[in-house]
Amino acid sequence: MIKKVLKFGGTSVGTIDRIQHVANIIKKEQGSNNRIIAIVSAMSGKTNELIKLSKNISNDFNKREYDVLLSSGEQVTCALLAGALINIGVKAKSWMNWQIPILTKGEHSNSRIINLSTEKIDDFLKDNGVAIIPGFQGISENGDVTTIGRGGSDATAVALAKIFKADICEIYTDVDGVYSTDPTKIPVAKKIDNISFDEMLELSSLGAKVMQSSAVQTAMMYDIPLEVKSTFTNRKGTKIFNQENIDYSKSVTGVAYSKDDAKVSILGVEDRPGIAANIFEPLSKSQINVDMVIQNISSDQKITDLTFTIKRDELSKTISILENNKQIKYQKIVHNDKVSKVSIVGAGMVSTPGITYKMFRALSDEKINILAISTSEIKLSVIIDETNTLKAIRKLHTTFDLD
Amino acid sequence: MIKKVLKFGGTSVGTIDRIQHVANIIKKEQGSNNRIIAIVSAMSGKTNELIKLSKNISNDFNKREYDVLLSSGEQVTCALLAGALINIGVKAKSWMNWQIPILTKGEHSNSRIINLSTEKIDDFLKDNGVAIIPGFQGISENGDVTTIGRGGSDATAVALAKIFKADICEIYTDVDGVYSTDPTKIPVAKKIDNISFDEMLELSSLGAKVMQSSAVQTAMMYDIPLEVKSTFTNRKGTKIFNQENIDYSKSVTGVAYSKDDAKVSILGVEDRPGIAANIFEPLSKSQINVDMVIQNISSDQKITDLTFTIKRDELSKTISILENNKQIKYQKIVHNDKVSKVSIVGAGMVSTPGITYKMFRALSDEKINILAISTSEIKLSVIIDETNTLKAIRKLHTTFDLD
Repeated sequence: MIKKVLKFGGTSVGTIDRIQHVANIIKKEQGSNNRIIAIVSAMSGKTNELIKLSKNISNDFNKREYDVLLSSGEQVTCALLAGALINIGVKAKSWMNWQIPILTKGEHSNSRIINLSTEKIDDFLKDNGVAIIPGFQGISENGDVTTIGRGGSDATAVALAKIFKADICEIYTDVDGVYSTDPTKIPVAKKIDNISFDEMLELSSLGAKVMQSSAVQTAMMYDIPLEVKSTFTNRKGTKIFNQENIDYSKSVTGVAYSKDDAKVSILGVEDRPGIAANIFEPLSKSQINVDMVIQNISSDQKITDLTFTIKRDELSKTISILENNKQIKYQKIVHNDKVSKVSIVGAGMVSTPGITYKMFRALSDEKINILAISTSEIKLSVIIDETNTLKAIRKLHTTFDLD
Repeated sequence: MIKKVLKFGGTSVGTIDRIQHVANIIKKEQGSNNRIIAIVSAMSGKTNELIKLSKNISNDFNKREYDVLLSSGEQVTCALLAGALINIGVKAKSWMNWQIPILTKGEHSNSRIINLSTEKIDDFLKDNGVAIIPGFQGISENGDVTTIGRGGSDATAVALAKIFKADICEIYTDVDGVYSTDPTKIPVAKKIDNISFDEMLELSSLGAKVMQSSAVQTAMMYDIPLEVKSTFTNRKGTKIFNQENIDYSKSVTGVAYSKDDAKVSILGVEDRPGIAANIFEPLSKSQINVDMVIQNISSDQKITDLTFTIKRDELSKTISILENNKQIKYQKIVHNDKVSKVSIVGAGMVSTPGITYKMFRALSDEKINILAISTSEIKLSVIIDETNTLKAIRKLHTTFDLD
């Protein structure tokens, strides 16, 4: 007997045919003896449709009512999936957020699951029933409907896997796993069979958007094994678990990239304590998301150069904030809005010497100029001219034996 | 200070513009001091869309999940209307069926409201807030979502008007009241200002479908004044209340009709106790809805003729059930599937002599043959050839001074 939480995203339940297909997957997963909890998203397009209705009333639509509105989407999927299961002879039942209840804490549209009562559902599972639960929502301590911001239904799946002590949490989606790089760009990209939570986090935040980062973080924190797999094929997916359980034959697991980046360098900045805070505080207050930050040790003790990357469409706002910042002194601001970030990610990197050199050599062989470098224990990122993005990914993919 | 329950049907909240219009109506109704509870239906078309989704899975879709599915429609309207009210500066809040809770009893898809807790909502009303509540639904004693069959959102409005001790229950819809006959067919049809519950029941069951009959019955039972009015005009609607409060200057209030009827006569039926039950029991078991039943006293003591009307599309099923019924003996079955029923309705009829004669004379003047007659205290119905329907309505409307 295995207890599984299965999560089905919006495209997986986007039509009645697909919901019936998901019902068949669940029937198979339950087999003769497994206990299945299914978490579902709203049918694809549904949530956007509801958001649009609210925006037609006001861009500042009341947050409490916004959550009441949006939570209806998953309710529809739950009822349809439970009905489809019963129709093929599987005992099933939908549970609404308030019927469990799924208790959340925090602001509307950005709450997080703190607890839920497992008894009734566990009894139902023991009795060979499949429990269908809406993702992305819960109720607050004073009984209001809430939705979960970051992570959405993935976060519900992982939180419920933890609270129900599930053996595994499987994320069914429209791709069949995590790839060594973007398979739509690089045809030789390979599906990764096993990956650590850390690597998954580095890859997903860099653009391999198969699963919400905050849900991966929660799974890592509570050591809940994940598997990302396709709803539409029978192929094995990607297993995500703790690093120590992975046998690293390769030092690099994947090559990620992000587009639409811009690089800003502040040259000749007065080098004294607190200067970085003075630079970034006003940007943060204006909701500008700063990605990489690189500061060189200056040869001259009094001044330094500071480089960071942001999303391209925030460049002009960023420059204007910097120029109006009276708290910093510098010689010059230069920027480049035609850059991209390419990263190699691998938990094996830390124990493999020469990775850094090998990456730089590979890029140099392709005559790709590196504009900035940033490293962490399991990731090495470079900023390059965006015209070189594909060439760089292809070269690195081959260099690190990922083809 | 007046406490009002306002109910807005599907077409009244069918688009965002209309929801915003309804928000303005509520703001005006609240004025400086009134207490407003608004009951809303799903946006028009929404419920049918959800039903279609369930039918694509199964025509025998699980009833519990069906109610979970359908109840999402009103939830969406509640959130949008509450948001629209807040947006124009009115304090408002949606309450879901489980948040109140609205307790129901009975089967899924056909339950009825038995109780609800009023305290929290009454506090909110006292504090100048508008409460928005979904029609058509509730929860059962064991915490499942239920929907109300007969009466739908009208039934919720009347039940809540009773439980909250509202002064009046106003039904906003897409017509501006109850008419003396169908205004789309007879241009001289007149809006009725005041009508009794009984008359309203006779009119609505006959085709003037402005309000669900079972909701009118409940209002009558608990003496809750109703008003049916248009969401889209400012005109006065139709007030519906107890007969003793109405001043009857006219004996006939309206002329109703039903289409798609068929008439079946069983001639030469053996006349003994229990024969009618033997005829109608198998029809009822097959869900055939029998409308008028007429049995003449037979001249011959041993046999009689029995006539009844049914919906036209159930005629062949009805005939086959009769022919296979071994419990009854008769000479012949004749039927006519091209008939319609025309009725005059009026609480003043009982105290006005000569109404019956006046009706028959009017029809005779138009050379309309009467195929069957049935009377009650406030209604007189005749079955006629369906080609004469409009002519009959027009003539009766004029005869009884309704133009």
